[in-house]
Amino acid sequence: MTRLYNDPTAFADEMIDGFARASARWVQRVPGGVTRSTRSEPGTVALVIGGGSGHYPAFGGLVGPGLAHGAALGNLFASPSAQQVRHVSEAADQGGGILLSFGNYAGDVANFGRARDELIAHGVDCRIVTITDDISSAPASERHKRRGIAGDFTVFKCAGAAAERGDDLDDVERIARKANDRTRSFGVAFSGCSLPGAAEPLFTVPEGRMAVGMGIHGEPGIDERDVPTADELAELFVSSLLAELPDDIEDVRGARVAVILNGLGSVKYEELFVVYSGVARRLDAAGIEVVEPEVGELVTSFDMAGASLTLFWLDDELEELWRAPADAPAYSKGSVGPTVAADVWQADDETVPIPEASEASRSAALTVLAAIEALTTIVDEHADELGRIDAVAGDGDHGIGMQRGSGAALVAARDAVERGAGAGTVLALAADAWSDRAGGTSGALWGAVLAALGDALTDDAAPDRASVAAGVTAATTAVLGFGASPGDKTMVDAIVPFRDALTAALDEGDSLAEAWSDAADVTELAAAATADLLPRMGRARPHAEKSLGTPDAGAVSFALIVVAVGAVLRDAATDN
Amino acid sequence: MTRLYNDPTAFADEMIDGFARASARWVQRVPGGVTRSTRSEPGTVALVIGGGSGHYPAFGGLVGPGLAHGAALGNLFASPSAQQVRHVSEAADQGGGILLSFGNYAGDVANFGRARDELIAHGVDCRIVTITDDISSAPASERHKRRGIAGDFTVFKCAGAAAERGDDLDDVERIARKANDRTRSFGVAFSGCSLPGAAEPLFTVPEGRMAVGMGIHGEPGIDERDVPTADELAELFVSSLLAELPDDIEDVRGARVAVILNGLGSVKYEELFVVYSGVARRLDAAGIEVVEPEVGELVTSFDMAGASLTLFWLDDELEELWRAPADAPAYSKGSVGPTVAADVWQADDETVPIPEASEASRSAALTVLAAIEALTTIVDEHADELGRIDAVAGDGDHGIGMQRGSGAALVAARDAVERGAGAGTVLALAADAWSDRAGGTSGALWGAVLAALGDALTDDAAPDRASVAAGVTAATTAVLGFGASPGDKTMVDAIVPFRDALTAALDEGDSLAEAWSDAADVTELAAAATADLLPRMGRARPHAEKSLGTPDAGAVSFALIVVAVGAVLRDAATDN
Repeated sequence: MTRLYNDPTAFADEMIDGFARASARWVQRVPGGVTRSTRSEPGTVALVIGGGSGHYPAFGGLVGPGLAHGAALGNLFASPSAQQVRHVSEAADQGGGILLSFGNYAGDVANFGRARDELIAHGVDCRIVTITDDISSAPASERHKRRGIAGDFTVFKCAGAAAERGDDLDDVERIARKANDRTRSFGVAFSGCSLPGAAEPLFTVPEGRMAVGMGIHGEPGIDERDVPTADELAELFVSSLLAELPDDIEDVRGARVAVILNGLGSVKYEELFVVYSGVARRLDAAGIEVVEPEVGELVTSFDMAGASLTLFWLDDELEELWRAPADAPAYSKGSVGPTVAADVWQADDETVPIPEASEASRSAALTVLAAIEALTTIVDEHADELGRIDAVAGDGDHGIGMQRGSGAALVAARDAVERGAGAGTVLALAADAWSDRAGGTSGALWGAVLAALGDALTDDAAPDRASVAAGVTAATTAVLGFGASPGDKTMVDAIVPFRDALTAALDEGDSLAEAWSDAADVTELAAAATADLLPRMGRARPHAEKSLGTPDAGAVSFALIVVAVGAVLRDAATDN
Repeated sequence: MTRLYNDPTAFADEMIDGFARASARWVQRVPGGVTRSTRSEPGTVALVIGGGSGHYPAFGGLVGPGLAHGAALGNLFASPSAQQVRHVSEAADQGGGILLSFGNYAGDVANFGRARDELIAHGVDCRIVTITDDISSAPASERHKRRGIAGDFTVFKCAGAAAERGDDLDDVERIARKANDRTRSFGVAFSGCSLPGAAEPLFTVPEGRMAVGMGIHGEPGIDERDVPTADELAELFVSSLLAELPDDIEDVRGARVAVILNGLGSVKYEELFVVYSGVARRLDAAGIEVVEPEVGELVTSFDMAGASLTLFWLDDELEELWRAPADAPAYSKGSVGPTVAADVWQADDETVPIPEASEASRSAALTVLAAIEALTTIVDEHADELGRIDAVAGDGDHGIGMQRGSGAALVAARDAVERGAGAGTVLALAADAWSDRAGGTSGALWGAVLAALGDALTDDAAPDRASVAAGVTAATTAVLGFGASPGDKTMVDAIVPFRDALTAALDEGDSLAEAWSDAADVTELAAAATADLLPRMGRARPHAEKSLGTPDAGAVSFALIVVAVGAVLRDAATDN
């Protein structure tokens, strides 16, 4: 269990502070994460990695010569925001373009994706390679749906070495993609882990049992059985991975593999070495040549008891990159040669200029601000309850994340209104602040919702029934773009009925306040009805089956907000 | 808890096998442990470290250029035998002498000490520096009694760097001693750990509580309190260590320290970084300059939850050595430059020639062999019971250790008798085999007992009452030389009464068989009476207070053996 912390909500910040202080030889802190504190060759590609915190050495411990140039560090088990990824990328940029690489989780895909779009919009060439090594998380026919676990490391290692030797962005991307294609992992777990300050473990495995294929956030596995002997586990690992070879390998005899036997936290070195003895003997017997194996902790999950085996099928190009020197806080190989301290990174002045706005839009901005005030209040009031609901099937941080995001949105909206912004700009800046401070999936979703509304409302005319309908429709489309469908027990199950009810009422000629109010009633019912749904397999829904009877926290918070905003719209209609 | 193993008694062997396979870039397996697999400069000093297994990265993970040249790897939490230390030292020797360095525990002191004596007897210059950094384990006035914990690393690092740059043995020893004098550690624990296959944890800490000053094998601490916040722990660490400065530091302002925040196993990186943030801020505030800190796991105790802070007060010489490059399986710093593979080490032919023996002594050797057979049988019969008794106050491995040792002694004795050895040589070879295979404190003690008897019996004349009395007296003196006194609840409480009763009876003219039989009766009572004693604070006696009412396992096994040998002597007397 996690015992040592101060304020649990400050854990990630304090952890990154301590990490950066302890690791100043390799990294410096920048907004959103860390970059190298040593100088890199101008014009080379920068490899930017990242993900939620709680997986050290991933991701900050892997920044340094021969490995990554920067890491975006999210909250505990929550994706960094798009802004974090963009800030770290800008700080790491050396003029050769950016490769973003990370494990395949919905929140990370959304936030890194948005950061890529923004970087490209700002003229920085940027590519994405998501890592999908966990063979238990989807069948071979759907490799793109698989999660990334310890195989993160083989991709980072080869892409980092390629960038270090000066390969261009096309080549670094090609190599990262090839490394991912040739990396397979298989994991087991014996216990869960508890987040700082949590009263209950995030998930559990019955004592004496082993969850086969369980993910690093407790995602459901494919089987459960008694804890085996070390040799039996070695056999399970090796036989499972040899059952799915890369396409070009027909006979394993003579093949070369880099091997990672990764501990998740409290399976310790001694046990890993006993298992590795069995793994190595089995690979030897199969005629496979092991190249520079790693036995230890590279991608962890606090003190979760578990382990995974990764086989990385080398060719000549990949073997050279795997063997290349590297020097990071938590990983070192060979001699990287002398390093030179980099300049301390200075962010550009971040004050965004406020575009001109019409009198009507500036007036509407006051209603927008009142709505954001109201939703922040309702989120604060229900934060604990949202956390409890989320903990049934998720990681219990929905309330905290929504509080962090809405509070930041409110500060940004107030500042924008004071500076004379129109309704569209107020929403756009609130959107950025929300997703940046909340992080995770809910941060990305709410950032997208507010941004879509802001786009529709603009800074020109006063908002009307048509622009609000267009905004809500666009927001719903953006949320659907994150991949969930109706019935998956997510916020989609609230926003789609809301959109349908609102646009129908507006089509029938209702006033905005009336239509919104009616749609809010529909939304409340829809959110409550998610209690009857079973969630689809997702990032942190280990107790999926337990959640029958409990509504989805994202749908509930959406309904709460819609109701609160409806009250503001009624007040505004009355005032006019 | 430790879950992954095959046969628990084979755990250490399999662990070392897996470690050596995974770490072939740095180490090669040799009898007794590992040495570097890379070539070292001829004529330089070899640093040989070691201790019980279960503390990885200590000790095998710290072998490589810039660090140690070899590590003697004992069984779980049990010292390596003198033979192991000697074999590793011989394999690591480069002609510049050997520095043996290890944490200050009774078993290690005994076995490394005997290895040093043997190396010196074979013409190899050899010194010992024991590490005593744990300020909770004895008052400052008795620093030599303190245990070694994470401060092992600062001593190894500086001694290894000094040896690497070519310092002679006098200087390497002086530097190691100075590094130890300037290193202080303070530790806490939140939970115990369980050894492979053990039904119960080796020791426990109540849930929600913190044992202050508890040792890495569960040695009793100095206080117990509720688990504090991370900042409170940082304050406890820093204030405790700043209360005991090295003699030459009067004002800490401007002082330079190397800092190690060490995790014992399941306090994870993220928590350590949060604590480190508080440590670094406090050291900053005190005006202390932190030099290349280490936050992570360097000396562990399986998955025990605990942490310690080490402050290593640098001067110019030590700072240069602390900053020097190193490259080992579990620790790397800077660039050590290219390495060259070493030759695979080949042990000399280990077959010991059998000295000439008189007919009388060869005949007596048959009685000695019968005695060893009898004691092996009695140990086998009582192994489980001895383990249960030992588990009350110790680590429960006394039965296994005695089985391993006596079994090896029997094989060696049979071989020696077949090859025509006299009684003295049979006992000497049995002594070597016992201590080598058993390891730990009981192995060292029984090795010393058999060796003393062998010295007294010689290969010349038939043993008589005088030579047996002399042998038992010398054996008792050797056992007392390990440091325990009567009343400490150890084997001493059985062997001293045995010696006294035997020599008194022989003085009164009893036959050997009669005298032995009477002394055996006395010994049984003395062993049983140890149930009334409280053990002194020792290596693995965390539940000292619980052991009232249970006799000492070492005393009990001694009495069992004395009784069994008495029966053999009676039979022999009857036959003659």
